[in-house]
Amino acid sequence: MPYMPVTESMFLIAETREQPMHAGGLQLFIPRAGQSATELAEEIFETFHSCPEIRPLFRKRPASPASLVGTLAWSFDDDIDVDYHVRRAVLPPPGRIRELLRYVSLNHSALLDRTRPMWELHIIEGLDDGRVAVYTKIHHSLIDGVSALRLLENSLSPDPEARHGTAWWDPALIRRRGPRPPRSLLSRITAPIGQAIDVVGQVVGAAPAAAKIAWTAVTDDHFASPFVPAPKTILDVPIGSARRFAAQQWPRHRLDAIGRALGITFNDVVVGMCSGALRAYLIDQDALPDEPLIAAMPVSMRDDSSSEGNAVTAIMANLATDQPDPERRLSAVVASTRKAKQVIRGLTPLQALTFGAATFAPLALAPIPGFLRSTPPQFNVLISNVPGPAQPMYWNGAQLDGCYPVSIVMHGQALNITVTTTGDQVNFGLIGARKELPSLQRILTHLDTALGDLEKVAGVAP
Amino acid sequence: MPYMPVTESMFLIAETREQPMHAGGLQLFIPRAGQSATELAEEIFETFHSCPEIRPLFRKRPASPASLVGTLAWSFDDDIDVDYHVRRAVLPPPGRIRELLRYVSLNHSALLDRTRPMWELHIIEGLDDGRVAVYTKIHHSLIDGVSALRLLENSLSPDPEARHGTAWWDPALIRRRGPRPPRSLLSRITAPIGQAIDVVGQVVGAAPAAAKIAWTAVTDDHFASPFVPAPKTILDVPIGSARRFAAQQWPRHRLDAIGRALGITFNDVVVGMCSGALRAYLIDQDALPDEPLIAAMPVSMRDDSSSEGNAVTAIMANLATDQPDPERRLSAVVASTRKAKQVIRGLTPLQALTFGAATFAPLALAPIPGFLRSTPPQFNVLISNVPGPAQPMYWNGAQLDGCYPVSIVMHGQALNITVTTTGDQVNFGLIGARKELPSLQRILTHLDTALGDLEKVAGVAP
Repeated sequence: MPYMPVTESMFLIAETREQPMHAGGLQLFIPRAGQSATELAEEIFETFHSCPEIRPLFRKRPASPASLVGTLAWSFDDDIDVDYHVRRAVLPPPGRIRELLRYVSLNHSALLDRTRPMWELHIIEGLDDGRVAVYTKIHHSLIDGVSALRLLENSLSPDPEARHGTAWWDPALIRRRGPRPPRSLLSRITAPIGQAIDVVGQVVGAAPAAAKIAWTAVTDDHFASPFVPAPKTILDVPIGSARRFAAQQWPRHRLDAIGRALGITFNDVVVGMCSGALRAYLIDQDALPDEPLIAAMPVSMRDDSSSEGNAVTAIMANLATDQPDPERRLSAVVASTRKAKQVIRGLTPLQALTFGAATFAPLALAPIPGFLRSTPPQFNVLISNVPGPAQPMYWNGAQLDGCYPVSIVMHGQALNITVTTTGDQVNFGLIGARKELPSLQRILTHLDTALGDLEKVAGVAP
Repeated sequence: MPYMPVTESMFLIAETREQPMHAGGLQLFIPRAGQSATELAEEIFETFHSCPEIRPLFRKRPASPASLVGTLAWSFDDDIDVDYHVRRAVLPPPGRIRELLRYVSLNHSALLDRTRPMWELHIIEGLDDGRVAVYTKIHHSLIDGVSALRLLENSLSPDPEARHGTAWWDPALIRRRGPRPPRSLLSRITAPIGQAIDVVGQVVGAAPAAAKIAWTAVTDDHFASPFVPAPKTILDVPIGSARRFAAQQWPRHRLDAIGRALGITFNDVVVGMCSGALRAYLIDQDALPDEPLIAAMPVSMRDDSSSEGNAVTAIMANLATDQPDPERRLSAVVASTRKAKQVIRGLTPLQALTFGAATFAPLALAPIPGFLRSTPPQFNVLISNVPGPAQPMYWNGAQLDGCYPVSIVMHGQALNITVTTTGDQVNFGLIGARKELPSLQRILTHLDTALGDLEKVAGVAP
């Protein structure tokens, strides 16, 4: 019975009914020429259902789900109730994107069953534009976002004529491909690391890392340390279990043009958009704090093609939401993320992982009544950026036409923004606590406005 | 802030992710002449959505959902997110009853959000027979099964031409009708009681009641006492959170003919069917115990038209599953239920309620690891019988064509059988723990066989 590293068990231990710890993805596919949406949905369903073998990642579950010990060891099921895990659904009329997002919102609120492998896959038809959606839901103790996206990619092909599409969990997908170079946005910072790290190893080096961060914090204005509290906002509250999911995509070349003109990274442009949009949303809600919001940005530390487990740390960015001028706001954001990356770069891999754990540790205490009210938040919002395939991808000839991350929110963490790229598409997925963040979907409009503002700052045409 | 009686708060306190404490119902409606299923679904959705007022039962929620105190007092929301509570869904093809039951199975596994009033209503189209289904889900702390069915009835009309159909929660439904006589199957036993009982009052008289039951237990062979343990079976196990729902209906006149021929009650015939079906299912699973199964049967103690709160006690019945002969099995079941009713009849209302609480109390301890393994079960299965309207009923001209209860299972209580009658239909709803009870749906076939067996015993034609 294999024991879990802390980076996996923490997601089981921290989970409550208000704070489910599963992440997901929403993919949209265009049926190939001559194929109807129902035919594609059936083809996916039948292929996935009839896959003869299921790789161990999709067969493992907490050994004894009702006890604490069960959250520290895995067991493996031989007999998988595929009929339970793989589901077909049809959207109610009129079948707009709105109905699809609603479907995801409602299903993302429900806890996964701990007595079986903790994942689900929903094949959804009924969209008025004829596309088919696939919503996946997988527990964060099994896999992190980068690995999940890599799994998806493995099941797709850049060749529109290829017809060997198989299930996500087909072991043949691993055998078919060898190790590949890392493609995480920040991999140049953290590579070459990502070796297996055991439970004992994770705490080694924590003290020196903390000392190094503390030193940087007192010597550099641009560094948003995890030990300097973020302002209290409507994002840092205890949450209910209901969610709202909002998603939209923009052309990647628009963001790249801004990056090129200003000499900043793609990630800086994404964070700049979030900064402007969150400022506008908080003004809408009459809830903009005087102090700038702090964002945590998870950094993958994986350097091989492995797609299991978690290997994530975080950097902190000042979102400069107190700054009304778009140019000054962007410049403050960029200065902050650059500094944060330098700090991480100076840490050993173990130190960096431990730094990540220290950053997220208070979240595990959030379910304790009163904790959130009396403790200043370490950061206000999580913003992740997970790069996907650079070229158009297909599953049995059906083109992937959008891939939106559906992440996790927590007590004290009512909003998560995760971004992924597929070909020329930049896909924003926003998941938020439904009751605590009214009109969450308006952030999409504000993101669009913020992108336009950055184009003006950069002097590039939309 | 009104405090909850124990009969309400116990359902909040005992609730875990594996043991959600909501019950539900699945109604099927035939669109009126000239109306499509989509038109009826839209009409229900629009009518429910636009209902200008919501009665307090549907606006109350635990005062502070994250703490124990919150499970002891109610608060009332003024602003209801109807868009969250009322949902439209479409079944995937081919839209058989199988797909509908699957929809209910999957949705009944998910916990309700405690930060808002704990109910949902799903309007489901896509059935190949053109009917529209309405699946409701409501927390047991708000309402018991009898009251829920009464609520549903209130929103229907016996007049197929009536067009004043409104939402379940429209306060006009209460104003429209005055108090009515009790119609619970066992109401003649418990009426006239059902007065408001406060938290202190509930424990008065417990000791004398227990003494009386203990005396009956030692002096009468037919009495299945809650203090004599039932055999350990595959029904008395810790459960996971996933559910399977199975449902089927039989003509009421078939059951009535058996009752008339043998001089037994309708309820005796229902329990007789369950007895034969459970014996056959346990033989299928190679899990029939030597000792007979014990069933608990909740008895409503409500005598007015109030449709809020809980007022339920229970009787115990020997299911005689050790008896292969259908005639002898039925006769043992009938002797046992008759005796159990006599005992309840001899109790005061407070004693009867307390007896019910004592019967169900060990369930609250079930989530404690090891408890179920070391403690003999008090009963093996819950069988409820909730009478519905005697005549055909309509909502805006759409005929109610089936009304299946979707109840609760718990640790140590992996199966629940609830039966309701509507016109000449006897609707069986079986909810079970999905992983622990394989091929649960086969019990439906066994129920049909058991009904045939009883017809042979009674010498009546099917």
